[in-house]
Amino acid sequence: MFDVIIIGGGPAGITAGIYTIRKKLNTLVISKDFLGQTGKALGIENWPGDKKISGVKLLENFRKHLGKFKVNINEGEEVTSVKKKKDCFELRTSEKDKYFAKSVIIATGANPRILSVKGEKKFIGKGVSYCATCDAPFFKDKTVCVIGGGNAGLETAIELLKYSKKIYLLEFSKELKGAEILQEQVRKNKKIEVITQAAVKEIKGDKFVKSIVYSDLKSKKKKEIKTDGVFVQIGHVPVAGFIKNLVDLNERNEIKINKVNNQTKTAGLFAAGDVTDIPFKQIVIAAGEGAKAALSCYNYLKKLD
Amino acid sequence: MFDVIIIGGGPAGITAGIYTIRKKLNTLVISKDFLGQTGKALGIENWPGDKKISGVKLLENFRKHLGKFKVNINEGEEVTSVKKKKDCFELRTSEKDKYFAKSVIIATGANPRILSVKGEKKFIGKGVSYCATCDAPFFKDKTVCVIGGGNAGLETAIELLKYSKKIYLLEFSKELKGAEILQEQVRKNKKIEVITQAAVKEIKGDKFVKSIVYSDLKSKKKKEIKTDGVFVQIGHVPVAGFIKNLVDLNERNEIKINKVNNQTKTAGLFAAGDVTDIPFKQIVIAAGEGAKAALSCYNYLKKLD
Repeated sequence: MFDVIIIGGGPAGITAGIYTIRKKLNTLVISKDFLGQTGKALGIENWPGDKKISGVKLLENFRKHLGKFKVNINEGEEVTSVKKKKDCFELRTSEKDKYFAKSVIIATGANPRILSVKGEKKFIGKGVSYCATCDAPFFKDKTVCVIGGGNAGLETAIELLKYSKKIYLLEFSKELKGAEILQEQVRKNKKIEVITQAAVKEIKGDKFVKSIVYSDLKSKKKKEIKTDGVFVQIGHVPVAGFIKNLVDLNERNEIKINKVNNQTKTAGLFAAGDVTDIPFKQIVIAAGEGAKAALSCYNYLKKLD
Repeated sequence: MFDVIIIGGGPAGITAGIYTIRKKLNTLVISKDFLGQTGKALGIENWPGDKKISGVKLLENFRKHLGKFKVNINEGEEVTSVKKKKDCFELRTSEKDKYFAKSVIIATGANPRILSVKGEKKFIGKGVSYCATCDAPFFKDKTVCVIGGGNAGLETAIELLKYSKKIYLLEFSKELKGAEILQEQVRKNKKIEVITQAAVKEIKGDKFVKSIVYSDLKSKKKKEIKTDGVFVQIGHVPVAGFIKNLVDLNERNEIKINKVNNQTKTAGLFAAGDVTDIPFKQIVIAAGEGAKAALSCYNYLKKLD
């Protein structure tokens, strides 16, 4: 029986682990991988103290830090279900293993919704990005395409205005969907060209992205735009399905938490980072939330004793 | 007129600055110093990615990161008052300067209440600590004194149980004040010796702390205890007095914030880190809160436009 099982090996999960272990809690970290969203960033310039660091390197630093402590880590294993028993939680995994713990911290993150088109995967980190706050400054004086006409897409296009020389905003449906005020800002700026009824078909390039191919749903013709980057902004998918029996999800399928102590609706079950309904998805925020969840969990276990 | 003025140069303030500048907000950071609480830590083992780093070095890394950007920094200046004008905030400082900004982020932190006895200042970082979560593991198999019989003192003594061989808990008044459940845990453990009616007079040592001198208020005699460390846990003083006209303070004089977006009761005025009523005072949490405040501030300014 563990004091706490942490599910997830991104910034929130690893920081939670560093905190629970330093609090001498018998801790198990279970994670499919130690990469997640962070590992996909082109280059990170907003992790305080590191002027510029690759996502892979930052996660490696986190991972080494966690590994310094006597901690149980099950890498490559996925938690498939969590049940609340009388005095504990029972976790089952993809390896058909069963684990028991007095408390659980969910830090499974969220995956950006992908386009699922040819070339998308190949050019991740080579022109294809899912995070403007992370990567916009890398597209100074370049041409970029933003995919998605919701709030995230509009905000990304507006943010890119400060850097890029030309921005194409592609939306699948007939009209943009984001807030009116954002639509106005987008439409009044000549650097942004809005293309609706555009179904993206392929991202092309050599070492880096060179162009994007889409089907114009009006003319039914295939068209190609030369571009240096593609920002995909069509939503996120929080990894919360396996735990929905024990938590409340919001309309975006994010786990609802108490913002003060990261408690979910089930006593002893905490959540932190991008899987939760905190509005900002950032590495340093997820790390802070991981620490909060760990300290709340420690207080919870202290009261149990 | 600045888009935003950030007051404070600790983890919350610097992270807020990194985020506002990357969002291209015209930013001024005003800070008395770039050290604060973090700079006083003996050694930090819970900043993710750095297995062990001194407080001074970590702050230096933060400061260099901020300095990489084109940002206005007024070091050595203290904000003495903030007024809300019709369309902006007016700040006055110790240098008799006046600054104007559309929004303000307060990240002035909190100072631990000090004992104000001989030797205390001299041995900070050399046996004198104000943070058990930060420093308890350094006192493995050692003797320590905890000063303060409130919740913080009791929790510190309990935490030290995992590491230290002997713990003295000194309280000025006749009885411990912390939660009953914590008092029980303290009293049932033989490693902890509670000394009430003890008025600390001096901390002695050479390179490191060697002993503590206190006046026994019952016998009116001076007594000395050999000890390797002194944890002072007699409360914190948030640096929020200069802004109390525009915010609500809780009973600990911390600024009340909306935990989702770090907004205070005044529109355009945000707060982050140890000066706020978030329950955990930790570097990584303060940094995350700084990022949250910056992104909320960016959203606020976008709506103003």
